[in-house]
Amino acid sequence: MIEHRERLEKALGYRFSDGERLQLALTHRSVSRRHNNERLEFLGDAQLSQIISTELFHRFPDAAEGQLTRMRASLVRGQTLAEVARELGLGEYLILGGGELKSGGHRRESILADTLEALIGAMVIDGGEDACREVVLSWFEARLAAISPQSVRKDAKTRLQEWLQARKYELPVYGVLSVSGQAPKQSFEVECELSGLKKTFRASGPSRRRAEQQAAEQALEWLEQTHE
Amino acid sequence: MIEHRERLEKALGYRFSDGERLQLALTHRSVSRRHNNERLEFLGDAQLSQIISTELFHRFPDAAEGQLTRMRASLVRGQTLAEVARELGLGEYLILGGGELKSGGHRRESILADTLEALIGAMVIDGGEDACREVVLSWFEARLAAISPQSVRKDAKTRLQEWLQARKYELPVYGVLSVSGQAPKQSFEVECELSGLKKTFRASGPSRRRAEQQAAEQALEWLEQTHE
Repeated sequence: MIEHRERLEKALGYRFSDGERLQLALTHRSVSRRHNNERLEFLGDAQLSQIISTELFHRFPDAAEGQLTRMRASLVRGQTLAEVARELGLGEYLILGGGELKSGGHRRESILADTLEALIGAMVIDGGEDACREVVLSWFEARLAAISPQSVRKDAKTRLQEWLQARKYELPVYGVLSVSGQAPKQSFEVECELSGLKKTFRASGPSRRRAEQQAAEQALEWLEQTHE
Repeated sequence: MIEHRERLEKALGYRFSDGERLQLALTHRSVSRRHNNERLEFLGDAQLSQIISTELFHRFPDAAEGQLTRMRASLVRGQTLAEVARELGLGEYLILGGGELKSGGHRRESILADTLEALIGAMVIDGGEDACREVVLSWFEARLAAISPQSVRKDAKTRLQEWLQARKYELPVYGVLSVSGQAPKQSFEVECELSGLKKTFRASGPSRRRAEQQAAEQALEWLEQTHE
């Protein structure tokens, strides 16, 4: 059995009537191809999305569908789930096989996020949907209180495109100027050209996507200062 | 109010205590930017995924996560939802604005699928989660009875890649040979080259993806006849 089960259950805010479900939820695929938390993660992922969607729907009766979708995406994405898992102190309870014991960085983040979903799946089986919902909402309470339709803006490339379209300008053209370094520590330098406005912005970032968003952000700042 | 409401409710297998919810669920964005079914669709989408996921989880206690995920994807994808909507006769109840009244084909399919999700959202608000689940499962009953982990295979390109990897062959290389016709009625001819086996397969289809899948399917058939 897991060590310090009571301490973990106290942190989670949920006491399992069947401790094997808790144990399975913490068991990564690296321990066993057959006996691991992947099925629970499948269940928990859908359960989490339903809980958060329902909550957002009722909390924000005036939000448009697009705003609800972006708020949900921001709350259930891997990075947020890994943060919640850290707040619950989940890291020290993960049951990992040899190869994963020392994994760090990105890999570790995704294991934490997946395990959080698996715990949600285990809770819904163990205690039913209402109990599960109550616990999950308590985990997300601060984030739900902080989020608003205004806080989750569309990404910079989308906003730039909409700004230009609304004013009948040509759409921006992005290009990669250079790539330096070796994966996974590469740096991409890109440009964002607004040909209709005869203006080009450059930015760099750890991926092409991030660099492009950064360049679009700069373009938007310039447009907002000079055109509004 | 909607005409023939009782007939529709009979087809759905659910009687709304508040008919306005039913009406809103049927109202497409083309009628009103503010008063339409998009928020209900957001809610229904998550509800549907949770209902189907939970059902698959319990029906297939031995299925692996990947199989569950593929079964869910096949049941909740737009094409399936549009089919279910047609079986319920939803088409004649859609409340559409001018521009969409005569829309056909693909556009119509996606409106039907979205409306089905909106109806699920409306039901969960109107009657609660248990009542909603019961109705949704009745809509999907035949499909749930027919589906199995074996019936939802991985796509051909994935299976081909796995077959080759397992036998240490080089991975296939796909290339577009020609594109003919005008969108949306284009035809793509592609090839799939198995350099390790000195064999090339050609296929065509309405999109590059479909043509590649078709070529991979041919490659698999040949491999299964000649190598197993």
